[in-house]
Amino acid sequence: MKRAVIVAAGMTKFGEREATFRDLIAEAGKATFDSNKHILPKDIDGLVFSSVYPERSAFQGHPAPIAAETMGIKPTSLIARVECQCGSGTVAMRMGQMAIITGQADLVMCMGAEKVLIPVHEEIFLNAMAGGDREWETCFGLVPPAMFALCAQAHMQKYGTTEEQLARVAVKNHTHSMNNPNAHFQKGVTLEKVMNSKLIASPLKLFDCCPNTDGAAAVILASEERAKDLIKDPVYILGFGQTSLAATLANVEKDWSSWPGLKIAAEHAYKMAGITPGDVDVAEVHDCFTISEIVEYEELGFCKKGEGGSFIEEGKSDYGGEVVVNPSGGRIGMGHPFGATGIAQAVELFWQLRGKAGPRQVKDARFALAHTMSGMGVENHVAIYGRV
Amino acid sequence: MKRAVIVAAGMTKFGEREATFRDLIAEAGKATFDSNKHILPKDIDGLVFSSVYPERSAFQGHPAPIAAETMGIKPTSLIARVECQCGSGTVAMRMGQMAIITGQADLVMCMGAEKVLIPVHEEIFLNAMAGGDREWETCFGLVPPAMFALCAQAHMQKYGTTEEQLARVAVKNHTHSMNNPNAHFQKGVTLEKVMNSKLIASPLKLFDCCPNTDGAAAVILASEERAKDLIKDPVYILGFGQTSLAATLANVEKDWSSWPGLKIAAEHAYKMAGITPGDVDVAEVHDCFTISEIVEYEELGFCKKGEGGSFIEEGKSDYGGEVVVNPSGGRIGMGHPFGATGIAQAVELFWQLRGKAGPRQVKDARFALAHTMSGMGVENHVAIYGRV
Repeated sequence: MKRAVIVAAGMTKFGEREATFRDLIAEAGKATFDSNKHILPKDIDGLVFSSVYPERSAFQGHPAPIAAETMGIKPTSLIARVECQCGSGTVAMRMGQMAIITGQADLVMCMGAEKVLIPVHEEIFLNAMAGGDREWETCFGLVPPAMFALCAQAHMQKYGTTEEQLARVAVKNHTHSMNNPNAHFQKGVTLEKVMNSKLIASPLKLFDCCPNTDGAAAVILASEERAKDLIKDPVYILGFGQTSLAATLANVEKDWSSWPGLKIAAEHAYKMAGITPGDVDVAEVHDCFTISEIVEYEELGFCKKGEGGSFIEEGKSDYGGEVVVNPSGGRIGMGHPFGATGIAQAVELFWQLRGKAGPRQVKDARFALAHTMSGMGVENHVAIYGRV
Repeated sequence: MKRAVIVAAGMTKFGEREATFRDLIAEAGKATFDSNKHILPKDIDGLVFSSVYPERSAFQGHPAPIAAETMGIKPTSLIARVECQCGSGTVAMRMGQMAIITGQADLVMCMGAEKVLIPVHEEIFLNAMAGGDREWETCFGLVPPAMFALCAQAHMQKYGTTEEQLARVAVKNHTHSMNNPNAHFQKGVTLEKVMNSKLIASPLKLFDCCPNTDGAAAVILASEERAKDLIKDPVYILGFGQTSLAATLANVEKDWSSWPGLKIAAEHAYKMAGITPGDVDVAEVHDCFTISEIVEYEELGFCKKGEGGSFIEEGKSDYGGEVVVNPSGGRIGMGHPFGATGIAQAVELFWQLRGKAGPRQVKDARFALAHTMSGMGVENHVAIYGRV
């Protein structure tokens, strides 16, 4: 079987964009083709498009061919759109990887795009609500901040995690995104400001939450052999792990401070890649809320269960620590345009692994992990990238 | 690389169902597990779920894990939802096939489900409109019947195809579905009744159009080796072809009577399967409108370009002819619950290739073709199944 590599990557500025869904696609597409002049739109024979709710936010229910047409791509091997809520982009990466390693496509673009910020604020809220289970959850108020507040409360009670430790995740990620010109936020934030920000769902405050963000991102995949003419030092896609143990929070886990599905997904991805958690130099993880990143340190094996709070407090997830987590700024600092997120992680890690991440470069990064989560522990998607 | 086979299949009754989205999933899941008692929900480690607009029709924006939970499946290898409008099911089949042949999953369920008929009729229409390009097409009235009417007019003008030939497709498919207890319609229809039915978009009349249908269908995939303990005579997935040459009708083709993207997709699928059009014994093709099936005969290579009208008139696409097209009744007779359609085709062909199709059995069927189309020629998805 062939091996899949990333040969080009690009993204839009993330943020509150005065741009349509199509505009975002065009911008990310141009950035991606600009990143590798050996590849033209006509060379792309596969497109896997990731988007969560364009049928609601852009009233476009068939976005994959619109994306292809907008970029001048005419896929003749593979065309698909995937939706797995916040994890959609990682799922697109996996479908692209499978098409390459089976030889079913030659050059596959994986693109994610989401227009979240529309004029009607109530509609933004409704769209996000459709991401939970309407019949059993969101209709009763169990929307994302409430879900993750339950997780934070359980983690604090069981492991003594503090609100200040949560806040330190926000400070770290907002500090990282000061070095990322594509990030939604570049102003940084102090611990005091996070701690004093508006309460959203106790103990989560405004700065414990990622923002609503517009954006798009894309990468181009090829086989190792095909890549030889296209790029000198491609980034390898080494492993994937995915799980979905339950859909509704009542069934997801008995203990809301643990995400066993993430643990399994990570183990599978490490195994496929042939590495261990200690080999990971840099990671982009799903910090939709600060508590998420803390639980993820634990389930990804960066620290023992229950020690996520001290892991951030001791600086182990920052530059100079054990693994640099969310150098892009993560969902909290860079922003979280749902369908684009998993692809934007791949873009950041492509830059990091090739030493092109500028002031936020993680020194000598060789192995990288990306994690997206759909719902609270509902689906977990882990990808491992690396230099070989 | 491994070879992928189908080891189980099931579907709901298609029609105007007094059932929710979740009910349809449960019903198709039960039918599928009932079809092969060697497989239990706990054995399934991958789910690819196909659905077009549950976020609009069922207000469920994250349907894949809901489907898994409803059936008691806990995927630990692969979880995804795909959307490619009317072609979604075939795309799910392809992702499932890739997961099996790469060894990334052991047993993958590909399920499609769609709840189309909701109480508010205007909303059904709006949902369908989101499947075209809102900015350039549907907002100006270029909805599906209008698009396919343009195709029919062009085909009639260029090749002399008649309204009666179109009507014969409806008669054939409604006759076929009389033998299909899962079909939306079982009453049959006469040529006179089709010809005298209400004009929808000239020359297409009511019976030239497929209905709005609720339904769900599923298959389970395994590798050839894994299947040995599960089933004696599995059905092989032999080839796929997919294209998307343009999104908007203005760009799809210069001549609306031709669908060059389908021709290319079919050629790729035949090549991967190592067969020719003449080898196909039975086909489920995308007869969303009668004209579609006529153009498909041509682009799939069952007859020469322009001869689709006489192909149906001479009975060549019926029992006793050259290839039995849409023995299930097709979209016109069986119904077209968008996300479920490509999977329901696989279910029908699984039955046909194993000699289990009862009164609608195509004798000695060895090679089968399935085709779904998203938009009018926007995306084409061809799959080849067979006995080896």
